[in-house]
Amino acid sequence: MKYYFERTLNTDFETALLKTVEALKKEGFGVLSEIDLHEKLKEKLGVDFRKYKILGACNPAYAHQALQKEDKIGVMLPCNVIIQEKSGGTIEVAAVDPIASMQAIENPELMNIALEVQKKLKNVIEILA
Amino acid sequence: MKYYFERTLNTDFETALLKTVEALKKEGFGVLSEIDLHEKLKEKLGVDFRKYKILGACNPAYAHQALQKEDKIGVMLPCNVIIQEKSGGTIEVAAVDPIASMQAIENPELMNIALEVQKKLKNVIEILA
Repeated sequence: MKYYFERTLNTDFETALLKTVEALKKEGFGVLSEIDLHEKLKEKLGVDFRKYKILGACNPAYAHQALQKEDKIGVMLPCNVIIQEKSGGTIEVAAVDPIASMQAIENPELMNIALEVQKKLKNVIEILA
Repeated sequence: MKYYFERTLNTDFETALLKTVEALKKEGFGVLSEIDLHEKLKEKLGVDFRKYKILGACNPAYAHQALQKEDKIGVMLPCNVIIQEKSGGTIEVAAVDPIASMQAIENPELMNIALEVQKKLKNVIEILA
């Protein structure tokens, strides 16, 4: 099963990051966390890893609904969107498919919410032109 | 499929949070993000949600290995540990089961890493006495 939606951008890393945050905002997602893996892996392991950021995206209304249906859904939240430098210098943006990440949770009441969030995250990737 | 490991603690929320961070450290995890859902849902929706925090826990060496096997694994990272207030005033700590959250990823090379991380997250929950 494919567990993400992705798009390759011919821009620099910082521009891709800004465009992604803007696209998330358009679809109702705020960024609750931002992890710089390049920086963290340098700091903790001394390795030179490519540019790679993890944004934790959250639509508060859907998150609130999901928490009421499944009290431990927080272990799967927020929905991550990653931005990474690929060989050749292009930048790839990928958003998690919440249907894939939540497939272990057997709660049919969550499914409609996950489908709505999936649609919005697909839009985020589509509007990144 | 159960997608988390959990334990109920008879302490206050802040003590549970400190104990969790300490237990994570003992098992080699740093906390890369901390999301306060109580605060965020108040700010964004004006609702009074119970105390609920999401810690993004990462073992840098395992994360680095996983990234080399699966370049978009970042959409599933870090591993979340949640701390929430339950009715009756007890505090529940739950760690994601990485085997459950990553089950959509068909990459057998990831399995050994996920099993190692699973063992460590189980330990985190067990040492929270």
